[in-house]
Amino acid sequence: MKKKLIPALSGLLVGIVASTVFFADYTNVGPKSVADTSTKSNAEKVYVPFGEQDEYYLFASGGHSGQMFIYGVPSMRHIRTVPVFSQDSATGYGWSDHTKELMGDYTWGDLHHPAFSETKGEYDGKWMFATDVANSRAAVMDLETFTVKDILDVPNTSGPHCAMFVTENTEYMFLPTRFAVPFGSEYASLDEYSSKYYGVMSAVQFNEEKEELGVSWQVALPPWSYDLSDAGKGPSHGWAVVTTYNTEEATTNLEINASQADRDYIVLFNWKELEKMVADGQYEEVNGQKVIFPEKHKGGLYLVPVAKSPHGVDVTPDGKYFIASGKLAPAMTVFSFEKAFAAIEAGDFSGEKYGMPVINYESVMEREVNPENALGPLHTQFDDKGMAYTTMFISSEIVKWDPTTGETVDRVPVQYSPGHSVAAEGDSVSPDGKWLISLNKIAKDSYLSVGPSHPESMQLIDLSGDKMEVILSAPVNPEPHYAQIIKADKLSPIEVYPKDETNPDAVYSQDQTRIERKGNEVHVYGIAMRSKFIFDAKAERPDVIEVNEGDKVVIHLTNIDFDEDITHGFAINRHDLNMEVQPGQTETISFTADKAGTFPIYCTNFCSALHQEMTGYLLVKPSN
Amino acid sequence: MKKKLIPALSGLLVGIVASTVFFADYTNVGPKSVADTSTKSNAEKVYVPFGEQDEYYLFASGGHSGQMFIYGVPSMRHIRTVPVFSQDSATGYGWSDHTKELMGDYTWGDLHHPAFSETKGEYDGKWMFATDVANSRAAVMDLETFTVKDILDVPNTSGPHCAMFVTENTEYMFLPTRFAVPFGSEYASLDEYSSKYYGVMSAVQFNEEKEELGVSWQVALPPWSYDLSDAGKGPSHGWAVVTTYNTEEATTNLEINASQADRDYIVLFNWKELEKMVADGQYEEVNGQKVIFPEKHKGGLYLVPVAKSPHGVDVTPDGKYFIASGKLAPAMTVFSFEKAFAAIEAGDFSGEKYGMPVINYESVMEREVNPENALGPLHTQFDDKGMAYTTMFISSEIVKWDPTTGETVDRVPVQYSPGHSVAAEGDSVSPDGKWLISLNKIAKDSYLSVGPSHPESMQLIDLSGDKMEVILSAPVNPEPHYAQIIKADKLSPIEVYPKDETNPDAVYSQDQTRIERKGNEVHVYGIAMRSKFIFDAKAERPDVIEVNEGDKVVIHLTNIDFDEDITHGFAINRHDLNMEVQPGQTETISFTADKAGTFPIYCTNFCSALHQEMTGYLLVKPSN
Repeated sequence: MKKKLIPALSGLLVGIVASTVFFADYTNVGPKSVADTSTKSNAEKVYVPFGEQDEYYLFASGGHSGQMFIYGVPSMRHIRTVPVFSQDSATGYGWSDHTKELMGDYTWGDLHHPAFSETKGEYDGKWMFATDVANSRAAVMDLETFTVKDILDVPNTSGPHCAMFVTENTEYMFLPTRFAVPFGSEYASLDEYSSKYYGVMSAVQFNEEKEELGVSWQVALPPWSYDLSDAGKGPSHGWAVVTTYNTEEATTNLEINASQADRDYIVLFNWKELEKMVADGQYEEVNGQKVIFPEKHKGGLYLVPVAKSPHGVDVTPDGKYFIASGKLAPAMTVFSFEKAFAAIEAGDFSGEKYGMPVINYESVMEREVNPENALGPLHTQFDDKGMAYTTMFISSEIVKWDPTTGETVDRVPVQYSPGHSVAAEGDSVSPDGKWLISLNKIAKDSYLSVGPSHPESMQLIDLSGDKMEVILSAPVNPEPHYAQIIKADKLSPIEVYPKDETNPDAVYSQDQTRIERKGNEVHVYGIAMRSKFIFDAKAERPDVIEVNEGDKVVIHLTNIDFDEDITHGFAINRHDLNMEVQPGQTETISFTADKAGTFPIYCTNFCSALHQEMTGYLLVKPSN
Repeated sequence: MKKKLIPALSGLLVGIVASTVFFADYTNVGPKSVADTSTKSNAEKVYVPFGEQDEYYLFASGGHSGQMFIYGVPSMRHIRTVPVFSQDSATGYGWSDHTKELMGDYTWGDLHHPAFSETKGEYDGKWMFATDVANSRAAVMDLETFTVKDILDVPNTSGPHCAMFVTENTEYMFLPTRFAVPFGSEYASLDEYSSKYYGVMSAVQFNEEKEELGVSWQVALPPWSYDLSDAGKGPSHGWAVVTTYNTEEATTNLEINASQADRDYIVLFNWKELEKMVADGQYEEVNGQKVIFPEKHKGGLYLVPVAKSPHGVDVTPDGKYFIASGKLAPAMTVFSFEKAFAAIEAGDFSGEKYGMPVINYESVMEREVNPENALGPLHTQFDDKGMAYTTMFISSEIVKWDPTTGETVDRVPVQYSPGHSVAAEGDSVSPDGKWLISLNKIAKDSYLSVGPSHPESMQLIDLSGDKMEVILSAPVNPEPHYAQIIKADKLSPIEVYPKDETNPDAVYSQDQTRIERKGNEVHVYGIAMRSKFIFDAKAERPDVIEVNEGDKVVIHLTNIDFDEDITHGFAINRHDLNMEVQPGQTETISFTADKAGTFPIYCTNFCSALHQEMTGYLLVKPSN
């Protein structure tokens, strides 16, 4: 088996390669086709004049920005930042009561791998999911309002990096961990790494009615790092795949020590089987979670050997194959689900690791694909003709190739060091084949310099001609680890929040506004409208809140301008308070009036010609 | 005098006008010129292909985002967000020790009115200043590194909205307040508004050597709202102007009550004279500040009557005139500095307000300019031919006109409701006359919908032809209250941070790395490099930090990859900690290890093919 593995670079060479940006050698690629399918210039292709709109939405992971960034394609214009894991003063996210509660104990996150909800393997335009590597959480965003509905702290996990994206009908998101820790992040010496540390894969489900995420069950995996993953579809529905590295179980200097063995594994798992095992009580309870331990609870989990330290693994749109990208090996490996199922059926195993049978590499490998001089394959996307597009981090290019033959069809250089790429609906069962965006880690000299640290870069590639062509470079907010592109007509965002007469905090008319005192709590039921705040219409000064030093102040504010795009903001001078009320929306913000004084209140969102006049006062009477 | 004032809309009409977006009537404007100066299509004009770079930088105020947004012009690509007043997890701003200290007690701000430092009235490309309306601060950003160097809490002030931009040689920034409060924000009933509340103008200076902002002196102004402002230049050097509204001193419902009187004022002041008064001891000390009270310390301050509730006031590039924009009046008023100086010399006053002489309107007014059907003039920019460009908020258009004749030269509709606009170096002594960007408050249907709240919008206008032409619409992060455009070749950002051997926290070689315990404080002197952390090279596991529960942990981290754009991040799982080290930079982050356990450390910025392997552990030994 070992002989068949692609020879990987030595540890030393890896160090050199990793610290240098290589450029592809294109001497073997033919001249640019003159038969372009379009007579438009590149400038015209990406230009969306006023009155027209982009064809696609791009949802890009913000990485350590913690947010989701929404762009239009092909114009690559950044339309909106949707706050998810990090505070966002632009929208008051993290200051208003309910967003503060959503964020829990955290002020930021590291958003990886966004994924649209799917029905029959198609993006259904309803929800968007994402994980937080930094603080081990998962989030769901509603695509009607572009706001986060729930954030789940995933117990027993540390760094759910490789969100599975979702299964074919959004049955599950699988969240295996990049870091191994003891259960509950308990203290344990690294000398006991192999016995006490675990990787944990969480099967997370979304309750659409309650708009809540929850952990259904977990699998205790060996203390390896789990990297990227994908769900089966069609013939592989019910299955999923995850890449691993550091199967060496190194506890220090992973750069060298996790790159020693010639092979790591892909974890291949039958989630329908695992689900059944849990239903049958085949689990142990750990910190309140149902956890499958493969050594005790056998079945459903298999290992497929793969060239060392793979990064991405991607299932082809027809669900027949999964493609591992070598990262340190120069090749992609195409594996067959059909062959894997047959091997499992036949018990064609070379051994077992931590209770998981290891399938023979030769039995499941379909082909190894090694484009000449291409280095550092990371991730693969697909078009409508079955072609695969793989990013080459080290040789800085996109390679288009045919998974059924292994033939290299086309190559195009990108600037520089692409991580993921994303094609229009390119990981669904029916990719559109229209655009590919290379998500580059290094921009360097691509744009005007903004100091020692440059933005990441997105490059739009036109797939409509015979040859791929990079037609636009756009800087991007840090850091697009992955993105998805959805047809614009699949989304139907609401225009204003509808009236909700059942909401006890909402006030829709001036005569309902009031300030109520309950002990030392003061509740304000106010409205924001062009161009004033009305906290109590009956008061001498309806836009003034007067409280006593030490009072808890709870301000409920409803925006009664039921007009698209008429958003009001709310801030109190020198109070570090900030919230936004979108048209029709009711929001609440609470604070303790712990300093006596006179503090202006004002609208932070320019809302009318008299916006500057949209002010009031908070008066806090001294307690002595 | 009253007769000469432009008749303003009644209070009732104001309400209607303010809540409706009007569109300009262009029946009086001639057909579009066929003689374009360029044969390029609009798409080609804004397209900057890879390998070429934008001609200008745009620095846009982020408003309640709290940040500065940097764009390239003409591509309108967003290159970078520079955090100023709000936390920014993308860069660790607000988590690392020194950025947390910069932010003080606040987590966010409302950034208004950015201003480049100037030498002889030209942008000199060295510094950028801005104010925080929410929490009454001022900040300075260094244009070599695109980072904030100092943030000043401005005492005695509430909402320094109308930053003066800077004087001709960056002698001062003047920060008058939008909100009136008692000194020190003390508690006082609104019934005592006229006697106890003040507007305060702060004269802020920047010490370039120490990279520190400081308040030199303040002026106690009447309890009015101060809106926009500008500094004199050339013949008006040493002078400055500020618009006011609510000279009615209304204390509630300003939408109606601050729009009652037919006129408000422009405060015209001689800052050289005020400086001299302070030197002569003509001030009182209030909360540690030197404060001029005009009723006691006479001189240097004058009032110019102007049509009700003006918004912007802009000095022409030649320094001869200042132009007030009506907001509620349909007109711009051109005032002459020369006439003002003569009136002051002659004592040509109609009375006095709060110790400030009121100059006769007729004596200083040069002309009233009232373009047909134009409504809601807010702000004015200039080109290289002396032409003025004024945004019309209500009629949603830009009007080009000649300040020396009052003639309307051209008009172009914008979508929708422009606040400020900004021309290439358009408020300096030598505008470039190349591009004008309309900063629109409402985008509505301009882009793909992202729910009830849409982004603001920027529209790029080509000034090179006979007629203005909107050639690109770009969504923009909230909220561009103002922006400045600087020629790209005026900036020279550094490529990497230079070694600083005098920095006791910096470590540039592996053998200097160490972990030192001082009582219950643990100091880590570590390095980040592709692709590992080394906290103590001599340890068995150099990338592990082991401490005791309750220890204070101080991590100093130096990025020793002296390569442009190779930035590393630092985060600890489940610790809500996050910082960034740019190439060559040393940063420090401190925390108390208050929970025992095992917590992975990792690099958050994808930095090499082995970035995923750039990890370590924080082990916190339980105390019992």
